[in-house]
Amino acid sequence: MTLGPLPETDLTRHRRLREQGSLDRADLEAILDAGFVCHLGVVVDGRPLVVPTVYGRDERQLYVHGSVASRSLAGGIPVCVTVTHIDGLVLARSVFEHGVNYRSAMIHGEARKVTDPEEKLEGLRLLTEHAAPGQWSYARQPSRKELAATTLLALSLEEASVKIRTGAPDDGDGPDAELGLWAGTLPLTSAWGAPEPDPALPSEILIPGHIARREGTRHG
Amino acid sequence: MTLGPLPETDLTRHRRLREQGSLDRADLEAILDAGFVCHLGVVVDGRPLVVPTVYGRDERQLYVHGSVASRSLAGGIPVCVTVTHIDGLVLARSVFEHGVNYRSAMIHGEARKVTDPEEKLEGLRLLTEHAAPGQWSYARQPSRKELAATTLLALSLEEASVKIRTGAPDDGDGPDAELGLWAGTLPLTSAWGAPEPDPALPSEILIPGHIARREGTRHG
Repeated sequence: MTLGPLPETDLTRHRRLREQGSLDRADLEAILDAGFVCHLGVVVDGRPLVVPTVYGRDERQLYVHGSVASRSLAGGIPVCVTVTHIDGLVLARSVFEHGVNYRSAMIHGEARKVTDPEEKLEGLRLLTEHAAPGQWSYARQPSRKELAATTLLALSLEEASVKIRTGAPDDGDGPDAELGLWAGTLPLTSAWGAPEPDPALPSEILIPGHIARREGTRHG
Repeated sequence: MTLGPLPETDLTRHRRLREQGSLDRADLEAILDAGFVCHLGVVVDGRPLVVPTVYGRDERQLYVHGSVASRSLAGGIPVCVTVTHIDGLVLARSVFEHGVNYRSAMIHGEARKVTDPEEKLEGLRLLTEHAAPGQWSYARQPSRKELAATTLLALSLEEASVKIRTGAPDDGDGPDAELGLWAGTLPLTSAWGAPEPDPALPSEILIPGHIARREGTRHG
């Protein structure tokens, strides 16, 4: 069972730059699947705390490695998880029209601390496979003790908002177009490099295919 | 006048993975200077909101493009601004030791809405030059009306914390090293591509040097 289109709620309604907003769940999923690091926001003693951490997902939930926020997570607490990919700079004729091409997803909800060992194992599998496909079955899986030492949060993907900006600057048909200035975009791309073996590794252990294959592929 | 070392406060003290923490202000500045998009956290109606936005800085203050948070910024409000660079995946022998090589800076403080037109202009200059060096003097600078329509936040760089992880996995000298599994890191690099002219641009307008020169250089 999958979730429907992204709902417009008080939290997800696009107030600014509405033309950059999307209510398409496929856009949300594509943004989540293109990355593996999110920024997790929580409120601690009335102040915001924004922490980078790793995540994975299934069709209904986001799983977030939550150790940093754990001291404030006895029960469900409101969180905001944001995933952003920067695609380039928008260099317009005027400073005012400068901007960024990006894809960003913001998920709102009450984070739930995963306590059931089976769900925790499955959540960690999703998280591991999301960041490093193939590693769950290749590496040594968590022991009972390691599982207990790991804090995993679950967050429904129900309430989310997406913003995307693509393309050229917006001042190509205004009076600034007469200034004779160059305008366009400067793309930014993130890509995986060559795997670097642990110096402690015996040289006869070769890089497995599921890791070697990522070299040169795009991230984000 | 510059600020001293990063202070250990209730907000910045490293509770987890203390070995990844840094109190060196030079580390903070290097992380800020390597990027141009931050994640701005604010509390709205008791809930966290984490929004990607652009920033610039001088030696004492961070300037953040703050339109998204503007409805809750009548006075100074507590914010957390986090800048993160992902340097690669740490692929250990055990899933438990998997991780990310990264550099992250978290700045805590009360955001101040910049209202003085001179400071706003200077803040926007810093922000523009930070993201796109050379554009402030090349592009058309903001008119009085555009300046008024821009929300800029200022945040002291006084209270900040830095976390950095580099290098190989940590399980190279434990019992898992006997498993015969490959371990190492998979580096991730972000780089600027070739400038893409606005399709509306007359072909005789050439790419200026300060933009063309960035192609192939690293970001983050």
